[in-house]
Amino acid sequence: MSHTYEYPRPAVSVDCVVFGLDEDQLKILLIQRGAEPFLGMWALPGGFVEPDENLNEAARRELQEETGLRGVWLEQLYTFGEVDRDPRTRVITVAWFALVKMSRYRARAASDAANVDWFPVSRLPRLAFDHRKVVRLGLQRLQAKVRYQPVGFELLPEKFTLRQLQQMYEVILDRQLDKRNFRKKILGMDILIELDEQESGVPHRAARLYRFDKSRYKSLLKAGFNFEI
Amino acid sequence: MSHTYEYPRPAVSVDCVVFGLDEDQLKILLIQRGAEPFLGMWALPGGFVEPDENLNEAARRELQEETGLRGVWLEQLYTFGEVDRDPRTRVITVAWFALVKMSRYRARAASDAANVDWFPVSRLPRLAFDHRKVVRLGLQRLQAKVRYQPVGFELLPEKFTLRQLQQMYEVILDRQLDKRNFRKKILGMDILIELDEQESGVPHRAARLYRFDKSRYKSLLKAGFNFEI
Repeated sequence: MSHTYEYPRPAVSVDCVVFGLDEDQLKILLIQRGAEPFLGMWALPGGFVEPDENLNEAARRELQEETGLRGVWLEQLYTFGEVDRDPRTRVITVAWFALVKMSRYRARAASDAANVDWFPVSRLPRLAFDHRKVVRLGLQRLQAKVRYQPVGFELLPEKFTLRQLQQMYEVILDRQLDKRNFRKKILGMDILIELDEQESGVPHRAARLYRFDKSRYKSLLKAGFNFEI
Repeated sequence: MSHTYEYPRPAVSVDCVVFGLDEDQLKILLIQRGAEPFLGMWALPGGFVEPDENLNEAARRELQEETGLRGVWLEQLYTFGEVDRDPRTRVITVAWFALVKMSRYRARAASDAANVDWFPVSRLPRLAFDHRKVVRLGLQRLQAKVRYQPVGFELLPEKFTLRQLQQMYEVILDRQLDKRNFRKKILGMDILIELDEQESGVPHRAARLYRFDKSRYKSLLKAGFNFEI
């Protein structure tokens, strides 16, 4: 079956930059291409938009089909439409970025095909299409966003220590933060719940665990509060 | 001539949310549709992407063809792709937002067809398609952006008074700012050049004129400076 139009049309795809935090490394989920063009090269998970699905639905479907990921935090990043970005035909791609709790996802990724893997953003392989550019913009957006919105919690386990929280910011922003100032700032915003639990199985003295208080944050937002790290 | 593809493809368009500042009002440039669907209704300037042009080129071309605007500050806003957003066929639109010095543009707009006009964002007519949603997102983006980037200067004349500058922020953010704090903050950033000129033709005491120092701002940026209002 073929489809005919009066004017030429581009194909439209979605691609996802999926970030995960692995201890002290920021990582991106890539798939290895099983077809031309760029056969065998690593690329962002993604694919063509179906006629009956919205763009965010397409992004979620492709993520699930290619990586098994479901229910992740997803936001539109940017649309890349350079005329020659795909050697086959004109393809305009709507890029999304996702934040994933790697601790929860690691097992599933391991059980999946060998052609899905996490790579440190600092040591990415050569990527297909213009995906290097897409990743670069995703990283910039993440770095800008974590400072003004509490999205970084999406990368952490539900319960985390203040050390893990600070490390998350240091890894994303790629710089050291002063421990005292950081704790003062984050605790001062009153958006964490201090739990009656400590971390376990660590070689150092076990630290207190915290949880992000999303409903508290939402009510603060309505009152004009500005999150800022 | 017709165009045939193996899989169905959506049409892709661009639409522009063009902001201008008219004294104490934030305005948006709209065009009146001369064809179905939504014949006679107001809409954002825009149109279909040509096969041989990049998305930003399409946005600039449509802006010029439909409104006469050239060389404006333009940035990608968001891509809207709800399945049923156009009654004709599936159309995915890449929305852009533009900031314009109205003082410079007013004359040209007046000489153009009657179907282009500026509307206050607070009193927009009914808009075609999902353009109301696009405008709302554009406004949110502008409000977020002016606080962390000196984009607001794009809306002001080259030479402006501190009163005009403050008014620009007040109009966009839709709230009063304390004059003393505002001046301390903006002058403290050291990104304005104080001119040896004063405004003219005003009913009140003529105030000093200033200019935004873009090259100074760029070198401050490299040194890790954060703009913030």
